[in-house]
Amino acid sequence: MAAGKFTYSLSCPLPQLDFDRIVLGHGSGGLLSKRLIDKVIRPALGEVILSEWHDGAILNTHSKLAFSSDSYVVSPVFFPGGNIGHLAIHGTVNDLAMCGAEAKYLSLSFILEEGLLLSDFWEILLSIKNACERSSVKIVTGDTKVVDGKKCDQIFISTSGIGEVHAQSDVHAKNIRAGDTIIVSGNMASHGIAVMSVRQGLEFETQVTTDSAPLHVPVKKLLDAFGSKIHFLRDPTRGGVATVLNEAALDSGLSIEIHEQNLPVLPEVNGACELLGLDPLHVANEGIFIAIVDPEIADEAMGILRNDECGIHAAIIGQVLDRQPPQVICQSLIGGRRVVPMLPGEQLPRIC
Amino acid sequence: MAAGKFTYSLSCPLPQLDFDRIVLGHGSGGLLSKRLIDKVIRPALGEVILSEWHDGAILNTHSKLAFSSDSYVVSPVFFPGGNIGHLAIHGTVNDLAMCGAEAKYLSLSFILEEGLLLSDFWEILLSIKNACERSSVKIVTGDTKVVDGKKCDQIFISTSGIGEVHAQSDVHAKNIRAGDTIIVSGNMASHGIAVMSVRQGLEFETQVTTDSAPLHVPVKKLLDAFGSKIHFLRDPTRGGVATVLNEAALDSGLSIEIHEQNLPVLPEVNGACELLGLDPLHVANEGIFIAIVDPEIADEAMGILRNDECGIHAAIIGQVLDRQPPQVICQSLIGGRRVVPMLPGEQLPRIC
Repeated sequence: MAAGKFTYSLSCPLPQLDFDRIVLGHGSGGLLSKRLIDKVIRPALGEVILSEWHDGAILNTHSKLAFSSDSYVVSPVFFPGGNIGHLAIHGTVNDLAMCGAEAKYLSLSFILEEGLLLSDFWEILLSIKNACERSSVKIVTGDTKVVDGKKCDQIFISTSGIGEVHAQSDVHAKNIRAGDTIIVSGNMASHGIAVMSVRQGLEFETQVTTDSAPLHVPVKKLLDAFGSKIHFLRDPTRGGVATVLNEAALDSGLSIEIHEQNLPVLPEVNGACELLGLDPLHVANEGIFIAIVDPEIADEAMGILRNDECGIHAAIIGQVLDRQPPQVICQSLIGGRRVVPMLPGEQLPRIC
Repeated sequence: MAAGKFTYSLSCPLPQLDFDRIVLGHGSGGLLSKRLIDKVIRPALGEVILSEWHDGAILNTHSKLAFSSDSYVVSPVFFPGGNIGHLAIHGTVNDLAMCGAEAKYLSLSFILEEGLLLSDFWEILLSIKNACERSSVKIVTGDTKVVDGKKCDQIFISTSGIGEVHAQSDVHAKNIRAGDTIIVSGNMASHGIAVMSVRQGLEFETQVTTDSAPLHVPVKKLLDAFGSKIHFLRDPTRGGVATVLNEAALDSGLSIEIHEQNLPVLPEVNGACELLGLDPLHVANEGIFIAIVDPEIADEAMGILRNDECGIHAAIIGQVLDRQPPQVICQSLIGGRRVVPMLPGEQLPRIC
């Protein structure tokens, strides 16, 4: 290949791996995603990537800012309760909220398939507008690309966001302590089941709608009230609650115990999960978060959450234990105990 | 459609337009792109979009930051002189430079096609790494999605960046004055011709390589030396130099006159353009910028540019005139004058 103005060395060889092609599971948000990042992306990028890579980044500038970025490829683009548009806005608003930040500015990049119906694009744009208004964010920059038919699937959206970090926030896995209380802010698995209910080949009758919602308000209420006693926040999107809890266990070096009877799941979602053979702990969410908090303030935090429209179904689902190795254990209804793994492969591709 | 937690109104009807589907030209960066933004995206988004929407946004925080976002869908992914990876980094670094800012932090979102060869992905990652090092930026957050085969074309990359605005910078189309000098920092049309030379169905023998390069260094030199006497900066990517000059004319309400004999184009690029029936003014670039500057400092600015490795071929190509209507006029070699329009349709889809 001829060299341009810009030349680069390929001195760093591809590591020996047991796969040589990308598979859908690499986009799952679970174990295979983690392998792709740890075995390929990180080694290739080396020093130019910060050591802490997750959905958002806090930037050390004069005012403390958070920065986050996500691409949305959900299929189908329209699903019960909404569409890819508000998903893309809420997703980035929520990634910032999980950094303890309130989203202020968003960028919006579209990759559109040639032939996309303008009326569909319009509906998506309107839902973006509504989501921005509800989230109190402004779109400040963007981009539009169009690709020839069959090289994209109607529309992909990438959003990035900048948010201001709450002055009292100190949210980080390193702050998780043995004895901490684990709260989930609402019913689990609704988004995944809503999308699956209309996915070609999987259609089934259900009234389940996505839980997609911006979460900055309940997060701000918790940080206003308890500051650094909120130790960890994360929204369990792809990979579900199980993947987030496993990441929290690995990053803190502690174990997590959850109680099956306390897991909030709508009956119709539970029914659909049973029908499809899915564990609700592994199904994607778009409108709930996990908070790991100081046990002293857990009850008061629950009171605040249950008074917020996004937290009516909040529940204490478990606690952090000083037990090795770091893993997630679920106590079943009948007293059994099982290890809950990170989502191992791809449960349903393109859920967000 | 059932309502979820989040509901939105569709009270705003789709405007009456003479198209009802997205076509490739909507991604051209030219006239059709502008129509899509002005007739569809802006009306739909209303108040949630800032009035000044271009490739980068300056944020009023304690320190003045710029924020920019772009998606890259170039086809083929590998082309003479490089690949989609460094294009995605340089593109966002350059969008920030055109805001008078030095890129500091980038986000990196991948949309990968199932089946993408890991060795190709690796090569792209390494070129990203090199481009980041050369541009002195850190990747601070990111995302990876995978879509099933044939719903994407190998790899799409979205990058967003945050940069610090130069303290003396006041770059804005409103600052353009009659009499200003128009400089182009290097040879035109190389990127577009390099990609075309390997595009299926268009292959032809040429030694042209992409001009893709980060432009923050020459921009900083100009701003250090002349501050607010640099009135306007823009990198002429999709849509080419003609589209940027038309935007400058429209946004300033002034006319622009350029001289064909002064336009810097490599002979082999010129030859390819003649062969393909293309105007180099409409062909995409990835490593040059247009500067519209106070005429007093034009010669000195040229001296600075020509001492920078990215500006060796810089040229003064024209001037701003107080003439109505605002348009771009090209004086030909033989004394003729022609109006140079914005790129009217799609010259070559997926050039970046």
